[in-house]
Amino acid sequence: MSNPILVEVTREPLTESVHRGAFAVADAKGGLKLFAGDVDRPIFPRSSLKPVQAVPLIETGAADAFGVSDEELALACASHSGEPMHTTRVAAWQDRIGCSVADLACGPHRPVHDKTATEMIANGERWTSLHNNCSGKHTGFMTLARHLQAPVKGYQLVDHPSQRLVEQTLKEMAGVSGDMPYGVDGCTVPNFALPLKALARVMAQFADPSNLSPPRRQATNRVVRAMTAHPELVAGTGRACTNLMRQARGIITKTGAEGVYIAIIPRLGLGVALKIDDGASRASETAIAALLIALGALPDEGAAAGLARAPVPNTRGLPVGERRAVMDAFRRPG
Amino acid sequence: MSNPILVEVTREPLTESVHRGAFAVADAKGGLKLFAGDVDRPIFPRSSLKPVQAVPLIETGAADAFGVSDEELALACASHSGEPMHTTRVAAWQDRIGCSVADLACGPHRPVHDKTATEMIANGERWTSLHNNCSGKHTGFMTLARHLQAPVKGYQLVDHPSQRLVEQTLKEMAGVSGDMPYGVDGCTVPNFALPLKALARVMAQFADPSNLSPPRRQATNRVVRAMTAHPELVAGTGRACTNLMRQARGIITKTGAEGVYIAIIPRLGLGVALKIDDGASRASETAIAALLIALGALPDEGAAAGLARAPVPNTRGLPVGERRAVMDAFRRPG
Repeated sequence: MSNPILVEVTREPLTESVHRGAFAVADAKGGLKLFAGDVDRPIFPRSSLKPVQAVPLIETGAADAFGVSDEELALACASHSGEPMHTTRVAAWQDRIGCSVADLACGPHRPVHDKTATEMIANGERWTSLHNNCSGKHTGFMTLARHLQAPVKGYQLVDHPSQRLVEQTLKEMAGVSGDMPYGVDGCTVPNFALPLKALARVMAQFADPSNLSPPRRQATNRVVRAMTAHPELVAGTGRACTNLMRQARGIITKTGAEGVYIAIIPRLGLGVALKIDDGASRASETAIAALLIALGALPDEGAAAGLARAPVPNTRGLPVGERRAVMDAFRRPG
Repeated sequence: MSNPILVEVTREPLTESVHRGAFAVADAKGGLKLFAGDVDRPIFPRSSLKPVQAVPLIETGAADAFGVSDEELALACASHSGEPMHTTRVAAWQDRIGCSVADLACGPHRPVHDKTATEMIANGERWTSLHNNCSGKHTGFMTLARHLQAPVKGYQLVDHPSQRLVEQTLKEMAGVSGDMPYGVDGCTVPNFALPLKALARVMAQFADPSNLSPPRRQATNRVVRAMTAHPELVAGTGRACTNLMRQARGIITKTGAEGVYIAIIPRLGLGVALKIDDGASRASETAIAALLIALGALPDEGAAAGLARAPVPNTRGLPVGERRAVMDAFRRPG
């Protein structure tokens, strides 16, 4: 059984490429409200896990102890574009906890924001681990390590107390017992695998934390507040997450590598998780926008409409086809 | 019915993403030697069509009339990386036919070769339409227009004599009568759609031109000679086509956007065409290498082995998974 086609890319007059995938929409108790495809197979949430990875930072009291601001929490939950607004804030945060770029376990990569990369090249500058889209998350782990009086060195290893707390938090929020398979994420940190329906349930608990313990509820509420208040820090200029969150006001959308996307919809008390089989970001962005429109969480206009149905341009900028969600796939109850 | 999984991407301990697709291996009479998936649905060959698009340039006598070299013919068949070795040759060719970069209908894009792009930015240079990976193909069309005493302006339009000759040539080589659907390629030129089994047959006639008319046979032979003699001009430094052709000596491999790849295997008299459903280049490169290995056209070593089975690194350069061909999918006769 293959997953349904969620997104198609046309080149008039034909459909040129298609993207299959699966998604789950759940409430905080794990009740599935809508789904398509295989939602039982474990998948890696990749960077969509970041809101969960930030929970122990708050719940343990580490964030308060180190005066971590909402802007910094938004960066802990970010796959940021490496723009100056991101890197300067992460560097200042590291400075305050007595760490530096040299402590980051993630390697450097070219800033996602092309203008920043171009300016750096023109100025003869080199990108560092601060420009890694995960540098905020890593700084969160270092802050947690400091608070736990654990060594900062090795914070990215699965047996480090910081990562153990992440695993424990995820298991509890997903309602999973026993071992969780994990892989090494692009930025060297463990990434735990779980079914889409469980990931949707985890996100639903950010949307509706009424069944969480008070310290955890306070932590998830603070993650929601920080991310929704600073959409430009969660991703960056022109990025899908930023544009969708600006339009949505109160909804969280968070991308993950290899075609993953989650959404947190407090107004509906729902969590959303989707994965494109082939890992394409162009398709996961289109699919999450379409799903939010189908759920009535976003109007079919602005950023959401622009992602759900986007022109395919040639090198002269003229449209020669379209990338679009197969809307019926998002409306059928699973 | 969905196409089979040809390539999988793991993140240990799980398969993280998969790529489905179809392929056809045919002889010059259209006999299918091996296939998988839907080989009857029309697909756009995109840049995999370039060897065919170069045939009228030679067959009409235009190439000889303008002293077009094998290096230039290789560039006419290229999706080049925009390195100086490509752009200086294309510019010199344009100069010789009384044209310039201003005549190119393709727009500019960042050179595919990252080092070239970085050096240009550092030197304050801007890329032009010469850096467009298709600038050699376009210069071939302009040369053909000159020879036909047709206007150079508008050479990219479907009713221009240059494009009519391409369509006619493709129909004859594919054994297709009647209208062929066409779309506008990324570089503004028409791209004609045909089933994978027909595209494989077209490529087989480059491999075994014994049934072609003498002028066309001379043209296809010259395309094969030019491309196999200059693999670095057909793509560029570090590119899959270049590395595979260097290893293969005598075999042509040519990528196309949206997950297309063709191969021409003179030694076996076979043509190959494949398309990844979702359009991913990482998968089409892996699949073509695996298919050439499965056909015994390439040994399972060197560039081919490195593409058929490649590590997925994290930002520290350490392998955390693998991109690999599902070899059984390439061995089963269709």
